[in-house]
Amino acid sequence: MGAITLVTDFGVKDPYVGIMKGVILTIHPGAAIVDITHEVEPQDVREAAFLVDDYWRYFPPGTVHVVVVDPTVGSDRRPIIVSAKGHHFVGPDNGVFTLVADNASDIHVIENRNFMLPAISSTFHGRDIFSPAAARLCLGFSPHAFGREITDPVLIGNLRPVADGNVLTGEVVRFDRFGNAITNIKAETLHSFVKDAPFEIRTGDISFTTINKSYYEGEFACLAGSSGYLEFAVFRGSFREETGAGKRDPVTVRVP
Amino acid sequence: MGAITLVTDFGVKDPYVGIMKGVILTIHPGAAIVDITHEVEPQDVREAAFLVDDYWRYFPPGTVHVVVVDPTVGSDRRPIIVSAKGHHFVGPDNGVFTLVADNASDIHVIENRNFMLPAISSTFHGRDIFSPAAARLCLGFSPHAFGREITDPVLIGNLRPVADGNVLTGEVVRFDRFGNAITNIKAETLHSFVKDAPFEIRTGDISFTTINKSYYEGEFACLAGSSGYLEFAVFRGSFREETGAGKRDPVTVRVP
Amino acid sequence: MGAITLVTDFGVKDPYVGIMKGVILTIHPGAAIVDITHEVEPQDVREAAFLVDDYWRYFPPGTVHVVVVDPTVGSDRRPIIVSAKGHHFVGPDNGVFTLVADNASDIHVIENRNFMLPAISSTFHGRDIFSPAAARLCLGFSPHAFGREITDPVLIGNLRPVADGNVLTGEVVRFDRFGNAITNIKAETLHSFVKDAPFEIRTGDISFTTINKSYYEGEFACLAGSSGYLEFAVFRGSFREETGAGKRDPVTVRVP
Repeated sequence: MGAITLVTDFGVKDPYVGIMKGVILTIHPGAAIVDITHEVEPQDVREAAFLVDDYWRYFPPGTVHVVVVDPTVGSDRRPIIVSAKGHHFVGPDNGVFTLVADNASDIHVIENRNFMLPAISSTFHGRDIFSPAAARLCLGFSPHAFGREITDPVLIGNLRPVADGNVLTGEVVRFDRFGNAITNIKAETLHSFVKDAPFEIRTGDISFTTINKSYYEGEFACLAGSSGYLEFAVFRGSFREETGAGKRDPVTVRVP
Repeated sequence: MGAITLVTDFGVKDPYVGIMKGVILTIHPGAAIVDITHEVEPQDVREAAFLVDDYWRYFPPGTVHVVVVDPTVGSDRRPIIVSAKGHHFVGPDNGVFTLVADNASDIHVIENRNFMLPAISSTFHGRDIFSPAAARLCLGFSPHAFGREITDPVLIGNLRPVADGNVLTGEVVRFDRFGNAITNIKAETLHSFVKDAPFEIRTGDISFTTINKSYYEGEFACLAGSSGYLEFAVFRGSFREETGAGKRDPVTVRVP
Repeated sequence: MGAITLVTDFGVKDPYVGIMKGVILTIHPGAAIVDITHEVEPQDVREAAFLVDDYWRYFPPGTVHVVVVDPTVGSDRRPIIVSAKGHHFVGPDNGVFTLVADNASDIHVIENRNFMLPAISSTFHGRDIFSPAAARLCLGFSPHAFGREITDPVLIGNLRPVADGNVLTGEVVRFDRFGNAITNIKAETLHSFVKDAPFEIRTGDISFTTINKSYYEGEFACLAGSSGYLEFAVFRGSFREETGAGKRDPVTVRVP
């Protein structure tokens, strides 16, 4: 028993995700393995860092969350375990755990060679290091058994919106499969920033002075998605394609 | 132990399906969760209603089948549990369970607030209502525990072919990934309608006077698929693209 | 407990893979079912044969590997179980198990009618024959219980590279999702062939005189992938599209 979630940029055409599951089940045959997505944009650590904060809270404490978006695999970047709120996060120390690191009780390097596969490739630590670590954490091994504690994880800057006077500035963090633009601004952050004042939300040439309740109130809509983040949509279309929006486009909230 | 199947129109790029699995495993850590498809055409309740009748019978009694194709989420449409032939079907009361409702022993509304997540969004009842209900049904809770019994589920008309004199009229219900057109006419329905008479099957400009045994007998083929439904195919091509066929196109079987 | 892996060319839009899982769980509710890929190019037995040798060794002994790439389903091709190195491989006798057959301890035909579904279609043996067999093998039934032993499995020729004098000839066996061309030449095979001599690797108009360590050393790269096979890549592009390479293109390694 015990669950392990997987996020990668591997896609599902190739056997890599299945191979990771084989490594996990060899060590922990009873693990429940859950795919979150394998469609992170290749090597986009920033997109993955946002995504991680979206799903982990819906899993039971003790769940191990593996994230393999790892453009510097084979370099000296460290493999790490971030333990936060009773969950464990396993992956490369490249900033992908920036948002959960806020809540971390402790962070350990994976350096115990006995807990890795016999051969370590320079290209597939998801198989050789992260999957074996996840399986053993799920079995109940302590993060201390994997290696020394560290306090200097790599963090990505400005993942959260920044308030400056009468302007709150965030960004577009990813697009969903319909082309809706998901921002890093939570509806509750907006509300505590604007209070009862009138406001203008702007990205590129598009602006909104209200939060829509549904996709059907006009050509463009700004809504709070199911995770609480503001998102931009086009009725029966793709916001991404119709506006040319891109990841990291600034999104501003302005009050008088 | 116990299985829960999932059908949605969410795709697999975004974390929504994984989040539903997290909610299920939090309540029922031993559930075997099986993806049927997450590629139902967005908001196409009619396509989903056909699909539901295709797979449930291959699962063991006691299986819980969750279907989240839910364009009216957030309105007053009811969340329901349809119990039929020892299986439970969980989802919105929008007609998606029309075909299994024929065999229903009882249908219950999900209204017990204790069986939902603490916060209920207006956009993601798959997470907030249907997944928790599925997990508890799989654990053995009775449908009666969820809410009152109802006898007026929403039903979609004409999902099954209609015989009128010498003509049996059905429709194209979906396209598979090769562009084959799947109809709602079972080969056995055709045979009991035509008996030993000659017949003509027609959709658009294409007609057949025999059922093919394989895809390789001509440019166009009409076969009985693995679920027993007649389907139209093009040898090494897409019937959908080559003929311009669409969902709900009429399909007629005519005898002298 | 016990794992069953699945490789098919069914895709994930249609309910076929889910139906196979339902059949498995009906017989063996505790099986851990792992998708390797459902994106084998339709009916490409040769591609599947290569793929099979890539993932099985990462699973625990006793795992059952189902492969349904089966263009001759419904003909008299035999359904078989190949037992090798403590693993079982279940699928059509069409060459898909050529590489694992090298290590086979025994091969059995599946002919025990009691171990199949009550109705056998002519189009979906993945559901009717292979899934029930896999579930029972995973439960511990002996391959002997399924049918007679055979010694003449169908084998595909030239799946492995051939050395002739100063030339080793292999081929492109598949493309990954980035368009990288995966060959059937292992880096270790290359090294034992060239020893310390200079060498030229060639496919089409492209040649290499060294193995790159990463994708970033030039426009084109030749690397050893995570499974040990040489692969060709284009920096930030698709080798398949930029060079027009195709499956079965010859790849030669030449020494002086």
